[in-house]
Amino acid sequence: MIIVTRKDISKEDYVRIERRLTELGFKLHPIVGVERIVIGAIGDRRTIDVQSLASLPGVEQVIPILHPYKLASREAKPEGTRILIRPGLEIGGRQLLIMAGPCAVESREQLLEAAQVVAAAGGDILRGGAYKPRTSPYSFQGLQEEGLRFLSEARAVTGLPVVTEVLNLPDLDRVAEVADIIQIGARNMQNFGLLRAVGRLRRPVLLKRGLAATVEEWLMAAEYILSEGNDQVILCERGIRTFETATRNTLDLSAVALVKTLSHLPVVVDPSHGTGRRALVPAMAKAAVMAGADGLLIEVHPNPAEALSDGEQSLDPSQFTRLMEELAPVAEVAGRSL
Amino acid sequence: MIIVTRKDISKEDYVRIERRLTELGFKLHPIVGVERIVIGAIGDRRTIDVQSLASLPGVEQVIPILHPYKLASREAKPEGTRILIRPGLEIGGRQLLIMAGPCAVESREQLLEAAQVVAAAGGDILRGGAYKPRTSPYSFQGLQEEGLRFLSEARAVTGLPVVTEVLNLPDLDRVAEVADIIQIGARNMQNFGLLRAVGRLRRPVLLKRGLAATVEEWLMAAEYILSEGNDQVILCERGIRTFETATRNTLDLSAVALVKTLSHLPVVVDPSHGTGRRALVPAMAKAAVMAGADGLLIEVHPNPAEALSDGEQSLDPSQFTRLMEELAPVAEVAGRSL
Amino acid sequence: MIIVTRKDISKEDYVRIERRLTELGFKLHPIVGVERIVIGAIGDRRTIDVQSLASLPGVEQVIPILHPYKLASREAKPEGTRILIRPGLEIGGRQLLIMAGPCAVESREQLLEAAQVVAAAGGDILRGGAYKPRTSPYSFQGLQEEGLRFLSEARAVTGLPVVTEVLNLPDLDRVAEVADIIQIGARNMQNFGLLRAVGRLRRPVLLKRGLAATVEEWLMAAEYILSEGNDQVILCERGIRTFETATRNTLDLSAVALVKTLSHLPVVVDPSHGTGRRALVPAMAKAAVMAGADGLLIEVHPNPAEALSDGEQSLDPSQFTRLMEELAPVAEVAGRSL
Amino acid sequence: MIIVTRKDISKEDYVRIERRLTELGFKLHPIVGVERIVIGAIGDRRTIDVQSLASLPGVEQVIPILHPYKLASREAKPEGTRILIRPGLEIGGRQLLIMAGPCAVESREQLLEAAQVVAAAGGDILRGGAYKPRTSPYSFQGLQEEGLRFLSEARAVTGLPVVTEVLNLPDLDRVAEVADIIQIGARNMQNFGLLRAVGRLRRPVLLKRGLAATVEEWLMAAEYILSEGNDQVILCERGIRTFETATRNTLDLSAVALVKTLSHLPVVVDPSHGTGRRALVPAMAKAAVMAGADGLLIEVHPNPAEALSDGEQSLDPSQFTRLMEELAPVAEVAGRSL
Repeated sequence: MIIVTRKDISKEDYVRIERRLTELGFKLHPIVGVERIVIGAIGDRRTIDVQSLASLPGVEQVIPILHPYKLASREAKPEGTRILIRPGLEIGGRQLLIMAGPCAVESREQLLEAAQVVAAAGGDILRGGAYKPRTSPYSFQGLQEEGLRFLSEARAVTGLPVVTEVLNLPDLDRVAEVADIIQIGARNMQNFGLLRAVGRLRRPVLLKRGLAATVEEWLMAAEYILSEGNDQVILCERGIRTFETATRNTLDLSAVALVKTLSHLPVVVDPSHGTGRRALVPAMAKAAVMAGADGLLIEVHPNPAEALSDGEQSLDPSQFTRLMEELAPVAEVAGRSL
Repeated sequence: MIIVTRKDISKEDYVRIERRLTELGFKLHPIVGVERIVIGAIGDRRTIDVQSLASLPGVEQVIPILHPYKLASREAKPEGTRILIRPGLEIGGRQLLIMAGPCAVESREQLLEAAQVVAAAGGDILRGGAYKPRTSPYSFQGLQEEGLRFLSEARAVTGLPVVTEVLNLPDLDRVAEVADIIQIGARNMQNFGLLRAVGRLRRPVLLKRGLAATVEEWLMAAEYILSEGNDQVILCERGIRTFETATRNTLDLSAVALVKTLSHLPVVVDPSHGTGRRALVPAMAKAAVMAGADGLLIEVHPNPAEALSDGEQSLDPSQFTRLMEELAPVAEVAGRSL
Repeated sequence: MIIVTRKDISKEDYVRIERRLTELGFKLHPIVGVERIVIGAIGDRRTIDVQSLASLPGVEQVIPILHPYKLASREAKPEGTRILIRPGLEIGGRQLLIMAGPCAVESREQLLEAAQVVAAAGGDILRGGAYKPRTSPYSFQGLQEEGLRFLSEARAVTGLPVVTEVLNLPDLDRVAEVADIIQIGARNMQNFGLLRAVGRLRRPVLLKRGLAATVEEWLMAAEYILSEGNDQVILCERGIRTFETATRNTLDLSAVALVKTLSHLPVVVDPSHGTGRRALVPAMAKAAVMAGADGLLIEVHPNPAEALSDGEQSLDPSQFTRLMEELAPVAEVAGRSL
Repeated sequence: MIIVTRKDISKEDYVRIERRLTELGFKLHPIVGVERIVIGAIGDRRTIDVQSLASLPGVEQVIPILHPYKLASREAKPEGTRILIRPGLEIGGRQLLIMAGPCAVESREQLLEAAQVVAAAGGDILRGGAYKPRTSPYSFQGLQEEGLRFLSEARAVTGLPVVTEVLNLPDLDRVAEVADIIQIGARNMQNFGLLRAVGRLRRPVLLKRGLAATVEEWLMAAEYILSEGNDQVILCERGIRTFETATRNTLDLSAVALVKTLSHLPVVVDPSHGTGRRALVPAMAKAAVMAGADGLLIEVHPNPAEALSDGEQSLDPSQFTRLMEELAPVAEVAGRSL
């Protein structure tokens, strides 16, 4: 950690800073520069709140050197994490996992039809929301418990494991009964109570990046889950919010390539939310694979024009089937098997 | 609502769009333009999910005309909402309310000292977090229940009402026992379960704007609370996330002026989080008043250099006292009383 | 164009709006809605300044329906534009063009060495800046005219055509003498005088997207060039500025996929500036190809550690050679030839 | 400057880094930390391109300590700069300067009428664009030389000094003949050739912040002008581009308060472009004064509904006159005279 002091620092303030750092267990290396003194402080800043140091009189800036995450970092664990979803189905290794299905579970028929499309086209995991976060209180909020039952049934019929979102802490047990992978949505990426709670389960967690979350904050959210003992975290890039409104979000594929260097955790990409436009999904799905994604999360609806949520970005069955065919050679070039 | 059709739309697709809109209860006004047909659809789009229309084949764009919020809009209620915190203390009227105190409740002594500073300087409401959302699982997470007890005591001693944050749904009852105003933090602005739950209380709610939330989304979050029957919502601007990193956030005072035209709800401003720098707080507090704020939320700490959270942006007692003195003439020029 | 009037519009204001629109040549279709009157105005809004209508009393909002660009739009020209750089070298068709070289021309030796690396590895075009836009007046500003001479020489030696940036209008003639493709940098995307000037040349122009430019503004910048008669515009995505600072910029590959649907112009991607980190360049180069890019712009330096500008994001010769080998099968899967 | 080395750095790489830094004239202070070596490098990094160091093998990060600007910094010149526009009219001191007028000069009549309104209401300086940067090539581009003549005439009639924008380098002489203050627009904030050229004049320059420029980049742009010898730079905050679209831009008043601490240069605020909405201009003008602005730039049009550019954000004469009256007590509270 580097402490930059003010140009005009008083002797008393400087002494107080040194004393405080020493109390916190840091070893100090003051460097007297051209305009000010800079203190190199050796120790593990991850256990203290470094920003509080910034409020000491005479401190201009506190610059952390180490990443604030430990368990999530590739330095802590150089080899990539592989998560076994079920025998023969693993994420983080050579397999490119395709998670697909409707944005929301809307009815038994809709879900079963979608699940069969996904299975027939070679998808690996069924996605579908029973609890839906909606901007408007007047929009469809999901079938909730009934939706979970339909997901169970769809899994029984197709054999596909299920990924579905938990929205509120009180629903976690119910969701965990059904979900093979528990999804934490973008709006809940910093719902720390929920992160801790899924951290105490032994179930894979799909952690979506918040729509204005930095890569560092995203990995710190993973750290919350890991620090509770659950090491089965799958990161999911789903687009960030920027000034550009021509796409629903800005799909940040550089973050995927970057996170693969910073962390050992597997990363999947959601090109459906990432772009918000069906026509862009196939190209961005393929681009995501080349950027290093370990899997894809794709919205498929038997009849997008009738969808109660996000139909605009859902593929129809024939589009999804074609995409799966097109993905095979892309995966191969990327050294992956579909 | 305006439906823009594609240039090359087929007759079948066009007929299907018209049928769907008619089924949804809209009255249609097709306009045959130079390059495409545009359909004016009259009806209340707020009860349906308009974006699903965007996935109908042949639709290029769906443009809503009305705001998606009803209860929060000034059109629905032209006069400003006034919320009585306690007899003689009202927000949304002529009074400029000052809510101040430490970011986090750290100890009985720290809180009582801060509360006395706030009371002595003429502050109206005591702020202090018992439950703290922290980016790192290794940072101080708040005193929780003990913190709530200290807040109760500080209120008893100083007579100041208390605003404090509820972080997780299971803690709501406990928080509501103590809080005169329940705070929903920026990270929870779209925690819809929590919004509904505070919507069922009869207690003022301070709703912070999410750090990447549009004004429309912010008002829709208020709509969640209002739609459950609680009409005592206070909006709080606390800075948004932008490319600029020289300040912690970008305090969006234009949004304050704008929201006062769009909505009847009172608005307060948090210049401490908004800037993240103590030295900028006084200027931005005064600017907020001129932008139309009904109140301010200001961090004060008896000893910022020892703060466990956000000390960098906290005023010390003498700085706060000076700010209160400086605010008086500013409030007066703005037609407010302090 | 749709004119949304205010809820409380007076009769006089409404009549004035209708008169004004009629004067401007629009045919009007008023739609009386639940809360307000909406006017559908048929005509070509591209020749007038629609925003001035927004200031008419009684107008709440003006919503354009058509894109503001004409010549750049795919509706105007459905087939993709192909630009012949030299016999056998075309962009916008099946070929994937690789433009590579150092960020800045630093010396005769450095440039010749880089050019030979590019040529040997199969690159198509040599890039290199003689005039460099630098944030600091104290940084290296480019070799300028001498740099142009070295570019000429490198072309003579290797046979590679040259793309280089024009920074200031007075230098345009000199740059145009040497450049096979004239580059307009991100900071100059809305330097309209410069756009008009290159629009009057008959030379391909590489138009970089501004770092905070929307896709629409980018296409409007192309429209400036096209409207002067130069139809050889190549768009270049090079990353946008967002809140994320872990990468230098956020490479917006969705914009590439989107622009290919909106416009007929070829698009290239610059993963070097887009990410600012050498380690991410290969993955993002491949991702760009899958997103639909017609070419790539890649920084290569004989010795990145000695680079005077942007060494951090430059590949060294062996990294570039390996990337070229890896790109071949990616191009093939994307239906391209390298 | 701090050089953070990689965890796994080789001895050779480490030695090379030390050698390079020493060659560049830095004195080195290596600190051996828990996980890596960090080198404190003492010297003036402002004369070299530090980012090139980041590309040395073994370097993970280069962290500058000093600001990159010198002449613009308050450390270099603690007292605020005052610029005399004409005898009795100074910016940067106690006077709050009001620059007002139409966005674009549209006709002799329009300009003279606007100028008289400004003068009558007590405005100090007349603004008006003769050369207009427009997103569309089909929009009104300004009256250009004729517009300059009208500005001259308006000055002669009203006695108000004139601020007007130079768009292209070849027009600079013509603009400088007329302008008392030469405006560099937001799109040209990093048009370094233009910055250098106005830096060689002895005329006040109003430097608008680019719409995605950081505060540091903005001050570096000022540094370009200052480094050429012109020390009469006035900074102008005019809103930045963020995800929020409810206002045209996000007026960043925190940046004003911040810049007053970082730099000695005077700062003015443009609430018209900053918000893009006439109704928000008065509140934000007053807020700007409290945030520390030394002046305001306000659009006034004799008849906004007929404006050829930005009418939506222009005040009409009576609105401007009322604002001037309301500003007087605000200025007084801020310790300013109007």
